[in-house]
Amino acid sequence: MKSKITIITIITLFIIGTAFALKIPVRPAPNGIAMPEGFKSWRLIASSHRSDNNTMRVILGNDTAIQAVRFKQTNPWPDGSIIAKLVWKNTSLEKWPAATVPGEFVHSEFMIKDSMKYAETGGWGFARWKGISQKPYGEDASFVQECFGCHTPVKDNDYVFTHPVELP
Amino acid sequence: MKSKITIITIITLFIIGTAFALKIPVRPAPNGIAMPEGFKSWRLIASSHRSDNNTMRVILGNDTAIQAVRFKQTNPWPDGSIIAKLVWKNTSLEKWPAATVPGEFVHSEFMIKDSMKYAETGGWGFARWKGISQKPYGEDASFVQECFGCHTPVKDNDYVFTHPVELP
Repeated sequence: MKSKITIITIITLFIIGTAFALKIPVRPAPNGIAMPEGFKSWRLIASSHRSDNNTMRVILGNDTAIQAVRFKQTNPWPDGSIIAKLVWKNTSLEKWPAATVPGEFVHSEFMIKDSMKYAETGGWGFARWKGISQKPYGEDASFVQECFGCHTPVKDNDYVFTHPVELP
Repeated sequence: MKSKITIITIITLFIIGTAFALKIPVRPAPNGIAMPEGFKSWRLIASSHRSDNNTMRVILGNDTAIQAVRFKQTNPWPDGSIIAKLVWKNTSLEKWPAATVPGEFVHSEFMIKDSMKYAETGGWGFARWKGISQKPYGEDASFVQECFGCHTPVKDNDYVFTHPVELP
């Protein structure tokens, strides 16, 4: 009896441990775009604070995008560039209330430059994952028309709202 | 005569080329702290928008600081952590006026954790460099009292105002 309990305990701990160790993979966006890996470690392009929907945003870039930023070659951005926009709800610092800072995570958004593959949407592949669980945005592949429509007013800036920050 | 002009031209081009190639080094802060290298490529800790002085800020960390962030070991931050705060004046996007974004570069600020070396100021060495030319802030080493005084209300958070952003 005692050895049975021990075996059950071992098996249970094994299952729990495995579940913790295996990260649940994030599903691709409905247009087939897979979430770019390692974006949390990408370098800074810019930040913003949108007062129309009370969100704080930080814009990061992969190596190709950052090289384009450093050489001021971002109109157009080179193929291979990926721009990540990370979005949080506004909150403020308890110890400095005039500082608006990122609170709850809202979503991650990506623009992936491939002028051939994504020729129909200005050379950019669009994708968004919602919330801390990173649920793909959009019911089907047509969601990109919403993204592209919103970005069309900035066609002259290669469909990108962001301007890289000035750095010393 | 012709060869003289050629020699003068070569020497002139050599001098101009050398001047361009040599970056003018940034002077250390009055307390002897040298500007940390490569901070433009550091990873994201957080961002903020201060409505009391109309500035946008991005907070980056060196590898030690980012490792502490990932493991949620930031109170206290480990020795070797460096936190960089990059500050810009507010501006807004022409094509999305409700988005406040970084404009003119104001200054870079650093907190360097060394609990022995900087024991008198909470274990942190402070430094700031002003403007795009990165002129050291402060007339003499006493400027750190201003920094430390302002950070004392957040003693319970290891003298750091910033809370690392939530990331998926």
